[in-house]
Amino acid sequence: MNSTPSEAAASAPTGELGDLSGHADAPPISLDHAGITELFALLAYGEVAAFYRLAEEARMAPNLSGRINMAAMAAAEMQHYEVLRDALGRRGVDVVPAMTRYASALENYHRLTTPSTWLEALVKTYVGDAMAADFYLQIADVMPDEAAEVVRSVLAETGHSQFVVAEVRAAVTASDRQRHRLALWSRRLLGEAITQAQFVMADHDELVDLVMAGGGLSQMTEFFDRLQNTHNARMQELGLG
Amino acid sequence: MNSTPSEAAASAPTGELGDLSGHADAPPISLDHAGITELFALLAYGEVAAFYRLAEEARMAPNLSGRINMAAMAAAEMQHYEVLRDALGRRGVDVVPAMTRYASALENYHRLTTPSTWLEALVKTYVGDAMAADFYLQIADVMPDEAAEVVRSVLAETGHSQFVVAEVRAAVTASDRQRHRLALWSRRLLGEAITQAQFVMADHDELVDLVMAGGGLSQMTEFFDRLQNTHNARMQELGLG
Repeated sequence: MNSTPSEAAASAPTGELGDLSGHADAPPISLDHAGITELFALLAYGEVAAFYRLAEEARMAPNLSGRINMAAMAAAEMQHYEVLRDALGRRGVDVVPAMTRYASALENYHRLTTPSTWLEALVKTYVGDAMAADFYLQIADVMPDEAAEVVRSVLAETGHSQFVVAEVRAAVTASDRQRHRLALWSRRLLGEAITQAQFVMADHDELVDLVMAGGGLSQMTEFFDRLQNTHNARMQELGLG
Repeated sequence: MNSTPSEAAASAPTGELGDLSGHADAPPISLDHAGITELFALLAYGEVAAFYRLAEEARMAPNLSGRINMAAMAAAEMQHYEVLRDALGRRGVDVVPAMTRYASALENYHRLTTPSTWLEALVKTYVGDAMAADFYLQIADVMPDEAAEVVRSVLAETGHSQFVVAEVRAAVTASDRQRHRLALWSRRLLGEAITQAQFVMADHDELVDLVMAGGGLSQMTEFFDRLQNTHNARMQELGLG
């Protein structure tokens, strides 16, 4: 993890990316870049894992409306899964074995961030959605149109989690104790997400290569710094900043 | 429960149905029949309850593919829920309070039929889907087009559960013990469903009125006899007959 560009280039399996120096005018990524397959597979497991976690965490909902909102978000994850399964199919890749490689990182993230209250579940939903969007959209921006379209479409409906903002803001406005508690929780979510993202990167050079080329980055740490910055913006939105 | 047509007619809140004698040429049901609202509300709770049960029962899946299939079925339930929520909205009815009236019957059904093995979960999925379809389609046939369209669209995607047939048939072909066990289980599912349907009917005269008028029935017991018959056909399909 924290690979430098030269390490990433040395281990890049495709060898198609001549310029990893971080210039914004880096050549576009080829559609058959192996990192795109891995990114789709990672996303696919992420969607299924999120489905089951939302269904599980909805048990803490104080009422039927909360349970319905969580179920609707979970259902949207499965629609996104199907988009990714089809996109992998077009690349000749069978989704289940491909996504299984990402099971441990994603299951570990969820296991280490099991909420103990409904408010923690809500914050996790919102922050998790936002971190996933930040992570993937950073990469999508310089991917070939066809692949970028897939990534953007599976991140498009995260607006579902907007229902969270009003409930969390109301709770933290009413209670300083809740605000401090949930601010800590939110930082823990970011920390665990970055830890697991680093494990994933350490095991998948194709992804490092894609992220470095895509982000025009000279260091992987820049990528995580950007995640930290957008995370801070989300915390402000939730009244936790 | 087991209301006679005259009881149903006496308690029918709309008073619009002059002919409950069971003739096939009964006048069409009015779109503002109160039973249609109740039917949509019952279906809506059924979809959300099924979502959570599928997500829960998927834990028993032996592999990731099984978990994905269950999650995809659960997601389809939530799409159906949204169709029903919108249909109720067009009738000026707020979905959450309306559906809450059916919570106990549906939660009781699921609680009393909690599977203890993956095969039991699969059979429950298939038989449950089929019973729901039989129940609702019997009624939809003589409903006004606009309302029948809603019912048919939320039952259209039950084909998802076809993935169950191959797995159950293979298991019961290989083992007589499994076949007997799952045949008993399947009969228990039917029994609990009928019990809960009778409780629902006993509490909701509008629904009795709709079913009697819709089915051209002279006795509620005929309605349940028909469910029994189609249930037997499903058991044959699964190799349990």
